[in-house]
Amino acid sequence: MHFSDDTVSGGVREQLFSLGDVPCVLWTPATPAAGPLILMGHGGGQHKKAPGMVARARRFVLDAGWSVVVADAPGHGDRPTDEHFDRRATELQARVEAGEDFALLMAGFHELVAARTVGEWRSVLDAVQALDHVGTGPVGYFGVSLGCGLGVPFVAAEPRVRAAVLGLGGGAANTEHAARISVPVQFLMQWDDERIPRADGLALFEAFGSAEKTLHANPGKHGELPRFEVDANVAFFRRHLVEG
Amino acid sequence: MHFSDDTVSGGVREQLFSLGDVPCVLWTPATPAAGPLILMGHGGGQHKKAPGMVARARRFVLDAGWSVVVADAPGHGDRPTDEHFDRRATELQARVEAGEDFALLMAGFHELVAARTVGEWRSVLDAVQALDHVGTGPVGYFGVSLGCGLGVPFVAAEPRVRAAVLGLGGGAANTEHAARISVPVQFLMQWDDERIPRADGLALFEAFGSAEKTLHANPGKHGELPRFEVDANVAFFRRHLVEG
Repeated sequence: MHFSDDTVSGGVREQLFSLGDVPCVLWTPATPAAGPLILMGHGGGQHKKAPGMVARARRFVLDAGWSVVVADAPGHGDRPTDEHFDRRATELQARVEAGEDFALLMAGFHELVAARTVGEWRSVLDAVQALDHVGTGPVGYFGVSLGCGLGVPFVAAEPRVRAAVLGLGGGAANTEHAARISVPVQFLMQWDDERIPRADGLALFEAFGSAEKTLHANPGKHGELPRFEVDANVAFFRRHLVEG
Repeated sequence: MHFSDDTVSGGVREQLFSLGDVPCVLWTPATPAAGPLILMGHGGGQHKKAPGMVARARRFVLDAGWSVVVADAPGHGDRPTDEHFDRRATELQARVEAGEDFALLMAGFHELVAARTVGEWRSVLDAVQALDHVGTGPVGYFGVSLGCGLGVPFVAAEPRVRAAVLGLGGGAANTEHAARISVPVQFLMQWDDERIPRADGLALFEAFGSAEKTLHANPGKHGELPRFEVDANVAFFRRHLVEG
């Protein structure tokens, strides 16, 4: 765990670190609270410090006093170039443009990436929970779009995760992983998602093995998740990680 | 407006009154706050003071400081016997047992009842808003099941309602009314509802004309709406009636 930067701004401490070749960011309350920890997965083409990630993390830290950690996914952000992934990504793009089924191709790609990220994110949890100002409190997961595709196998595999917000993803490849998830899930769908067919999103919601799962669907496209859903995310995590 | 009872218990003032032959209950904070007013519609076979109505009203009054008013629907609670409605209800029951389409029959019955309740509920709003300890603040509507069947035409017709929680209802008869609704809607569905086919519930969500509408779907049957949805209702009304 190699720290490269440590700053405080507006009540939020931000530490940049890498674990092997995985660049990560950790946000904690400036005054340590040792409450829950949220691991977030970013969207495709984004990275650990994309504006939406920063904004959501600040809400979790400032409104709730929690810690948030994000790792760059393979082929994203500050990760070193990976010829294998780049080749697969370029190939995927070409096949999508050639008219092959987007959902199936994407699902296969997520499966490939998740085979790597599940282990990486477990190591990130190990490392971050060993820090005094984070500790081993309850863990939640947040991830939509690519963060859902990679999050479903992660949440299924990692027993430290006690509640998960997932969404903007479909069931094409993930239904088997989804069926093994038993923790509460809040699932976000965009009703007019131009990338995930509605039936595919509903199929993933349907597939979660959890006794408690709630679907939140709003009008709008893939990138138009309403800001008020962050309030619902905070309330959900509070119920399961703090009061639960 | 004839008051028959006025009591205070645990911070909540309860006033029973009737308006013509419509028995109503008004709950307000023991210390008047003159904030938003929520008009609630009760479920079929229930009444204005059914346990679920009382519990939800107490949350609105105690957690948020709002006022809540409920009227007994025709054929329910303390309403005088109405041979016309009783005959239609008995006839409906017989046709359901004979295998006719439940959703269509129910929709027709709701239409019949709503032709009466829309006007009744407007008069209830007039009367209650004239009270000093309620006043003319923003109005919200809450109603599921029968409260949705009657609520959709009411919310469509009544401009004082600025936000509505609806649910456990289908689109069979209400899509035309639903299309005329433009205020924010939070729509509650039970994913395994044995009375409302899933496609019928989704069709009603689809039909709302509102730019902001959110579907909340949870596993479980018609009567198993999770208690945590009340928190989501409070957050929704707060956003639109207090902060909006």
